[in-house]
Amino acid sequence: MTSSFPDRLARAISTKNSRVCVGLDPRPDMLPQTFTDGANGLEGIYRFCRRIIDATAEYAACVKLQAAYFEALAPGGLAVLWRVAKWAHLHGLPIILDAKRNDIGSTAQAYASASFGRHWREPVVQADAVTVNPYLGYDGVQPFLDVSDELRGGVFVLVKTSNPTSGELQDLETATGRVYEVVARMVSEWGATRIGDCGYSSVGAVVGATYPQQLAELRALMPQTVFLVPGYGAQGGGAEDVAAAFDDDGLGAIVNSSRGIIYAYRETGGDFQQAAAEAARTMRDDLNSVLP
Amino acid sequence: MTSSFPDRLARAISTKNSRVCVGLDPRPDMLPQTFTDGANGLEGIYRFCRRIIDATAEYAACVKLQAAYFEALAPGGLAVLWRVAKWAHLHGLPIILDAKRNDIGSTAQAYASASFGRHWREPVVQADAVTVNPYLGYDGVQPFLDVSDELRGGVFVLVKTSNPTSGELQDLETATGRVYEVVARMVSEWGATRIGDCGYSSVGAVVGATYPQQLAELRALMPQTVFLVPGYGAQGGGAEDVAAAFDDDGLGAIVNSSRGIIYAYRETGGDFQQAAAEAARTMRDDLNSVLP
Repeated sequence: MTSSFPDRLARAISTKNSRVCVGLDPRPDMLPQTFTDGANGLEGIYRFCRRIIDATAEYAACVKLQAAYFEALAPGGLAVLWRVAKWAHLHGLPIILDAKRNDIGSTAQAYASASFGRHWREPVVQADAVTVNPYLGYDGVQPFLDVSDELRGGVFVLVKTSNPTSGELQDLETATGRVYEVVARMVSEWGATRIGDCGYSSVGAVVGATYPQQLAELRALMPQTVFLVPGYGAQGGGAEDVAAAFDDDGLGAIVNSSRGIIYAYRETGGDFQQAAAEAARTMRDDLNSVLP
Repeated sequence: MTSSFPDRLARAISTKNSRVCVGLDPRPDMLPQTFTDGANGLEGIYRFCRRIIDATAEYAACVKLQAAYFEALAPGGLAVLWRVAKWAHLHGLPIILDAKRNDIGSTAQAYASASFGRHWREPVVQADAVTVNPYLGYDGVQPFLDVSDELRGGVFVLVKTSNPTSGELQDLETATGRVYEVVARMVSEWGATRIGDCGYSSVGAVVGATYPQQLAELRALMPQTVFLVPGYGAQGGGAEDVAAAFDDDGLGAIVNSSRGIIYAYRETGGDFQQAAAEAARTMRDDLNSVLP
């Protein structure tokens, strides 16, 4: 039987000794021109993503595919995402689909099926975990948990996001704490019956590296929740800012970097694969340096 | 110059004398079998949606395409959505893409481009408006407003959703009112500089028919905001429940029904187009009966 998502992730973290999540955000204007020239089109985008995976797999615990950039390519752009996911899967990398989907009832069920890769036609490789937005409450998350349970996958719920205005709603004080704390308790509760052998649950939380104090508070509030941490690097968060996310075994969190890795060549010059590999390796070492 | 989205919608409402939004939720298991039989596949789904539009256009102010159901068809399922959107456009129907997207920065820009139909390759017909989720604050909405402004489109922000657990976050009391009221004030503020000739802004709100008291309160709080109202029919809301959404001219809101129209044949038997047309006409008359 397949192991649970948190167990698969923990194994990837320990065997690679890496907490790096490589974020695949294919932006045509940022790619080496050879991939977008002339007749390349979507095929060029696919090949770029594949080579990034080849270059960084050694240093990565997992990859995160950002649905937005694939959707923006063409009406059928998500088909490219699934081809890339398949390649990551062949490398043995757990795949997180960052789609931040949210809806209710049968619509949320449809999103859950689509996000995990269980389409009506043309079945594809399965995503290991997907991101969801909690604004609709339990109704909006439960269908994702159902599909996730069936496939032994994971769900990452947005709790405290990394952007400057995340506090406008998330930091509002209520009778039972801030809104993000209310969400954190829901995440913890949903996860309580879904704990893997590693001690973490299959219901994770997105917690930004740009708010280190809240990150530390949220770690205390959700001791069995895997954190997916955006905001490292380009958005300003450093290794010290995310240190509190890790437990004494160096487990419990993965830290995403997209631009900082896949477009590293734009800063350093030279070969894009070498630059991406170097950036991923440096980030791996940077994160490992703050472990207990 | 193209008129603004609220003005285009107001014209559709007045010329059709209809506040009905036909929701296109193509679920393979709910379609007449002839569309999903054998080799039909995605082509059958497209033809079903097209015939629903043909049957209901006379009674509809606009159509809403639910991204989830198209995504769930196949990895490239959204391509079918855009073909359907084109057909609705040929009928002169404003198109709302119900995608509830949310993210920040360049990722939100990518979602905004994708949702309005401005892809990198294979440009398609333009959506008139898109739905977005406000959990990330202004950062998560602003890129959609930017693209919307450029295309003279509209954005519908989730304020108070129709589902049973919508209150878990949305109804939490804060120092400045409930969370959904905080969002409502943001929507109102974002719309203040975007008012069309009809008096409504291009920043709309999603407010469920299943919470009639909150709907009435929100109308008072957002007098210049177009409401997109889900929850009529199958979810339990009736015409009386949504009456407060309309102004003295019968403008200011559109009410969505998906299952209740496009799958009406499953209740009534007989031809699916006739059943859909009848359901849309009945809903139009039902809503008009509660206008001032």
